[in-house]
Amino acid sequence: MPHDAGNCARHGHSGVGDRDGGDQQAWPAHRRPARRYSRTPFPRQTGGPVLHHRHEPGGAVTASARLLGVDTEAVVDTFDIAVVQTGSRVGAWQQNIDAVRSEVQALAAGGSKVIVLPELFASGYDLDSIDTMAESVPGRTSTALGALAAETDTVLVTAIAFRDADGIVFDSSLVVGPGGLIALGHKRFLWDREKSVFTPGAESGLLVSSPFGTIGVVICYEAGFPETVRDLVQRGADVIAVPSAFGHVRLHVWKLLTRSRALENGVVVAAAGLTGQTGDGPRFAGHSVIVGPQGRTIVEMDESVGSVSATVTRRELLDARDEIPYLKDLARLGGITENDSTENPHERNRDVRSAIS
Amino acid sequence: MPHDAGNCARHGHSGVGDRDGGDQQAWPAHRRPARRYSRTPFPRQTGGPVLHHRHEPGGAVTASARLLGVDTEAVVDTFDIAVVQTGSRVGAWQQNIDAVRSEVQALAAGGSKVIVLPELFASGYDLDSIDTMAESVPGRTSTALGALAAETDTVLVTAIAFRDADGIVFDSSLVVGPGGLIALGHKRFLWDREKSVFTPGAESGLLVSSPFGTIGVVICYEAGFPETVRDLVQRGADVIAVPSAFGHVRLHVWKLLTRSRALENGVVVAAAGLTGQTGDGPRFAGHSVIVGPQGRTIVEMDESVGSVSATVTRRELLDARDEIPYLKDLARLGGITENDSTENPHERNRDVRSAIS
Repeated sequence: MPHDAGNCARHGHSGVGDRDGGDQQAWPAHRRPARRYSRTPFPRQTGGPVLHHRHEPGGAVTASARLLGVDTEAVVDTFDIAVVQTGSRVGAWQQNIDAVRSEVQALAAGGSKVIVLPELFASGYDLDSIDTMAESVPGRTSTALGALAAETDTVLVTAIAFRDADGIVFDSSLVVGPGGLIALGHKRFLWDREKSVFTPGAESGLLVSSPFGTIGVVICYEAGFPETVRDLVQRGADVIAVPSAFGHVRLHVWKLLTRSRALENGVVVAAAGLTGQTGDGPRFAGHSVIVGPQGRTIVEMDESVGSVSATVTRRELLDARDEIPYLKDLARLGGITENDSTENPHERNRDVRSAIS
Repeated sequence: MPHDAGNCARHGHSGVGDRDGGDQQAWPAHRRPARRYSRTPFPRQTGGPVLHHRHEPGGAVTASARLLGVDTEAVVDTFDIAVVQTGSRVGAWQQNIDAVRSEVQALAAGGSKVIVLPELFASGYDLDSIDTMAESVPGRTSTALGALAAETDTVLVTAIAFRDADGIVFDSSLVVGPGGLIALGHKRFLWDREKSVFTPGAESGLLVSSPFGTIGVVICYEAGFPETVRDLVQRGADVIAVPSAFGHVRLHVWKLLTRSRALENGVVVAAAGLTGQTGDGPRFAGHSVIVGPQGRTIVEMDESVGSVSATVTRRELLDARDEIPYLKDLARLGGITENDSTENPHERNRDVRSAIS
């Protein structure tokens, strides 16, 4: 895939995220027409997505629940993925949903099929109000996003403040498709004061099969742990979606980890973040980005609200994994140290090292 | 540690690595005087380093061989580390050694204590001549470097073409100190055609205790695997030394992986590479670099031969691991999924996910 304007489109406008804070101009007053130079052929979609999940804590894939009777063999080889960047207002649920609806409708009209939304965009990111904003699933956010996914024939990925039947509150990844709710995961690696309002999930990372390949989901800070994304990719992820609310003070971390996770795994990373600052709340990083499987930026936003999209292909992913065979070498050698299952243990190697000690 | 010129020095000159190849100007015709703005207090060195290594293939640290009777409690908190970048000529062993000797002497005179040299700098990087260039340990390269380390009171890290007593050839990390040979490891993840001339080692990564903290060593392509560096850091590495011969065509990969390994582990990465191109051989990336534990570049070379150094402190490392607690969160939660040893398993979490499948 060439990394030029030919395979990406950009929506939105400038005007938020001024350095000195203050209330942001949260919603577009006008929208520039989407530029699109290459139309994606409409995918051969065969139905709604499928959830793969693990029942056992040990880590192996032990179950694959087919939710909607999909034939997952028929995966499209080329599709458009998009990230939406919002300046969500705390507590302004309807306004936050409406703004995302506009972006998703525009993206879908342009051909996007998988759309990643920021973490906690619906409630706004205010840890002090999480307890009142937390909702169940099905709940108002999952229902609204499910209707939007059905209307636009897209798969939507985000993270919400979720309260389970026992009243426990998680920061939960949510995936909805045209057929409704697909999957729910729970953030395990909580950032800073999130630890005091959310309960950590039992596993980091969520894996979802879709007609557009297998989507792995990690939430914000979790993407900084190479282990989590590696695990998802080794279990089959083609795309890593990262709903985020990353702090602007660590923008260099955001830029580094999104590229590195893509490079070291030969996988597309689509990372959507909050942007701007409300009152004296945290200033968010913006810079939502889609990174190709060679670790190169395909398209990156600044600190404006809006969205960008890119066409991704299975061919580019396979080429990247051939060009730098991290995954193949790991699989071939069975990991970073020899073990009993290694085909050809190099016993002499250890002897050499022992000989000089 | 401020990231300004105050804590780094640079040796060498420009003039190699021109874009269109051709024979490189391999050695400095003149040397600019080393600029140094902050002198490092001479470390309270208590003796030669100690080798930690593993006898069992399972992965746990099972043995700690004290080579030189060192008290490893007395580790200095501040020291200078350096990387040397060479344009080594294939087969010109004496010339290659002499050039490195000049750099090491200059660096040591400026206060550097740990100095990383490129992979295969002594033999030159020519896979077709590896079989004739491979040597034993002790051998001419380890002996020459041992004498240089003793003369300059430094720890030197590189990788050589090593032939063991059974005639098997490895691409082997070599660490020598003032007391002589310290440790030998063997590259496990071989790049491309290296697979046809070297035998892979039984484990990726070598761990060496020194008066300047614990040094982890990975060789070139191995640094692209987050697993390897994570393992070394979880076993105690404060500094990751990366002797390399990275291809210029993948310069963006080199830049990304060196920063990311430092960031995600809160560790200093000192990566020394070959530079330039000889005849129709591969063009090397140069851009040897020392990265701080927040993933920020402290000092980076261009494609010149020469060397750079930086002062590193234990305090900065501890601060980085507090600021973004990847290691602490992994340790606290016991990994990316719950297991039997997790203090507080969130059983309901899995129930929630099962409930919607």
